[in-house]
Amino acid sequence: MAVMPQDPQIAGAGALLAILRDGRARTRAELAQLTGLARSTVSQRLDALMQDGWVVATEDAISSGGRPAAAFVFNESVRVVLTADLGATHARLAVLDLGMSVLAERAVELHVDRGPRDTLGRVVAEFETLLAGLGRELAQVCGVGVGLPGPVDHGTGRPANPPIMPGWDGFPVPEWLGERLGAPVLVDNDVNIMALGEHWTVGQDTDHLIFIKIGTGIGCGIISGRRLHRGAQGAAGDVGHIRAVLADGGSAGDAVCRCGNIGCLEAVASGASMAAELRAQGVAADGSRDVVALLRAGDTRAARLIRQAGREVGGVMAAIVNFFNPSVIVIGGDIADAGEHVLAGVREAIYSRSLPLATQHLTIRASRLGDRAGVIGAAAMVVEHVLAPDMIDQSVQARAVDPAAPVG
Amino acid sequence: MAVMPQDPQIAGAGALLAILRDGRARTRAELAQLTGLARSTVSQRLDALMQDGWVVATEDAISSGGRPAAAFVFNESVRVVLTADLGATHARLAVLDLGMSVLAERAVELHVDRGPRDTLGRVVAEFETLLAGLGRELAQVCGVGVGLPGPVDHGTGRPANPPIMPGWDGFPVPEWLGERLGAPVLVDNDVNIMALGEHWTVGQDTDHLIFIKIGTGIGCGIISGRRLHRGAQGAAGDVGHIRAVLADGGSAGDAVCRCGNIGCLEAVASGASMAAELRAQGVAADGSRDVVALLRAGDTRAARLIRQAGREVGGVMAAIVNFFNPSVIVIGGDIADAGEHVLAGVREAIYSRSLPLATQHLTIRASRLGDRAGVIGAAAMVVEHVLAPDMIDQSVQARAVDPAAPVG
Repeated sequence: MAVMPQDPQIAGAGALLAILRDGRARTRAELAQLTGLARSTVSQRLDALMQDGWVVATEDAISSGGRPAAAFVFNESVRVVLTADLGATHARLAVLDLGMSVLAERAVELHVDRGPRDTLGRVVAEFETLLAGLGRELAQVCGVGVGLPGPVDHGTGRPANPPIMPGWDGFPVPEWLGERLGAPVLVDNDVNIMALGEHWTVGQDTDHLIFIKIGTGIGCGIISGRRLHRGAQGAAGDVGHIRAVLADGGSAGDAVCRCGNIGCLEAVASGASMAAELRAQGVAADGSRDVVALLRAGDTRAARLIRQAGREVGGVMAAIVNFFNPSVIVIGGDIADAGEHVLAGVREAIYSRSLPLATQHLTIRASRLGDRAGVIGAAAMVVEHVLAPDMIDQSVQARAVDPAAPVG
Repeated sequence: MAVMPQDPQIAGAGALLAILRDGRARTRAELAQLTGLARSTVSQRLDALMQDGWVVATEDAISSGGRPAAAFVFNESVRVVLTADLGATHARLAVLDLGMSVLAERAVELHVDRGPRDTLGRVVAEFETLLAGLGRELAQVCGVGVGLPGPVDHGTGRPANPPIMPGWDGFPVPEWLGERLGAPVLVDNDVNIMALGEHWTVGQDTDHLIFIKIGTGIGCGIISGRRLHRGAQGAAGDVGHIRAVLADGGSAGDAVCRCGNIGCLEAVASGASMAAELRAQGVAADGSRDVVALLRAGDTRAARLIRQAGREVGGVMAAIVNFFNPSVIVIGGDIADAGEHVLAGVREAIYSRSLPLATQHLTIRASRLGDRAGVIGAAAMVVEHVLAPDMIDQSVQARAVDPAAPVG
């Protein structure tokens, strides 16, 4: 969005909307009292917010004895958010309103190895189909959130040397999608957006949460102080390459990892490593889903591997609990579908190696959102961005300059 | 402070001061433009800030062609901060201004095992001596920061089952000191305030920093997103009880730790464990300072132990680097005085076991503040608290109600 002259009388509209985001209707007088602003300033900012669609006057005005006063409320359905959670071979897409309700969603087969233009072109087409089904238009989209199965540079939203995404390195995902969808696009890696989704589900009063995904690989997303901790290079959460250690201090083996080191957690406890181990034992197993399917079919070799993987993941998480002291650990990814078979080992290792103070109120559980964690988390990321006071200020300023511009 | 009726015309004074904290002088017109507030509101808030001493009119008014306009500037010297960093047997005390300049400081012998009243009574007396030497009064103290050598409940500022502080469990340190010093008192554990001090030194543009203290025990302080990460129970940073592991995956021994587990980092790599190992070899060594003194005197046994401790600390930090992706790791505590003898092992283990993306811009170095990290960090904690907009609002409101009240 181009820089434009600021109208100071409406520049604080975003702060006013931040007050109204809780969904309560308020009068001009109440807003003036809450902010210390002059009534005339409040009126000007409300006008700007209404013109831009963020706020509506409620039908029932509020009466306090005398003449009923008009009241104003946040309009969470006027705009929508589009989100896409891309895996190696499958994607989930959704349309949500600003109150985080899922209006429509869809899971499709989509191979990221076909390159960014093919893949993202398909994402755009799926979004258009979902919007059409809702009777909504692109002009109502205020933001787009995308999760990618690889490292993403947070500042630019571009993939950074993603190992399983040929052709994507440095591709300008936000710009490419933004041109076609006409809204700001935020991109992060899939584990980070899943962590945001799980955090949104447990509630905003949970300050510190760790989401660990055990699938083909192993990685985690970290919430510190209610915000995503991405780390200095956006590399935080790469727990798959921590050396696995058992609770009794023994080495967890010397398997060579794809990173070149030996004994990495991912090389001994991931879905890929368990499937490889089963194949070495003559059992047909292609990936993490097969390992869980074998467990469910009563295969004791798969059960033993999954329980052992739980202990190995728990051994690494025990160290992280001592370091980070989270209040919630959520286990997701395909292997989390093994339920207590994997959770038991995780808990056992954490309780035996972490300090009592750090574990007494610690919740360790499987994901409740499952496959939807990504699209929910991407929406939470977009809503926080779009409703940030300075973004709202930009939006209402743009409309003040060009009242015919599309909303968003 | 009692709840009092809010005067909305001055309730935003804190936000005005936040703008002036950068030290630049500004006119009423500039402040009105920056905030979008009416000139009359800016004037009322400036009056309240000046009456309360936070802001002064500069002598040189700013001219922009016409009549020179009065300009206003943050008054960082009108109030002072008192800080105390208590160790088991020694304490460091300091007086700083709001610009973080140390005006006076003192190191004294002080044994926390004499209980809270004796210890804190001595702290109050030392503060009074330092203030008298500066010609300052208690009425000018706007906040007090204290670091204690044990776990502290962050919400209440009370020690929580501190192992080396008999009689301190649950003692109301903030209230006891607050009554005698007449200012808000913030308390945290010593490693957390040292981390704040190191972070203040490296600069506010460093988002993620880990400070690890290797002394009698081993612990760390964590800065995530420029803020202290204390964890859900305030137990974050307890890396001393992570199982030590060598870079080659071997177990680091089965020494029994004081926590009851075996093979903890603290049981193999702390100053206490190294001194015990030297005594077992017939070398006189009481604690961590003796181990470093032996190294400096050319004792090869001490040198070997310290280098090995560096590798063991590095093995644990390698996992933490993969998980947390900090941009700076600072090593402090007595053993850090061994310099490259300990840093070499830390670096070796981190570079061999952490992913290249996380280490390419990682700085690993010894503390620059040394023994002063605690008093500097405690002051940073207090200044952030005291100058927070809502605290300033409370202060100016109190003065509006009672203009004769002491500043602070």
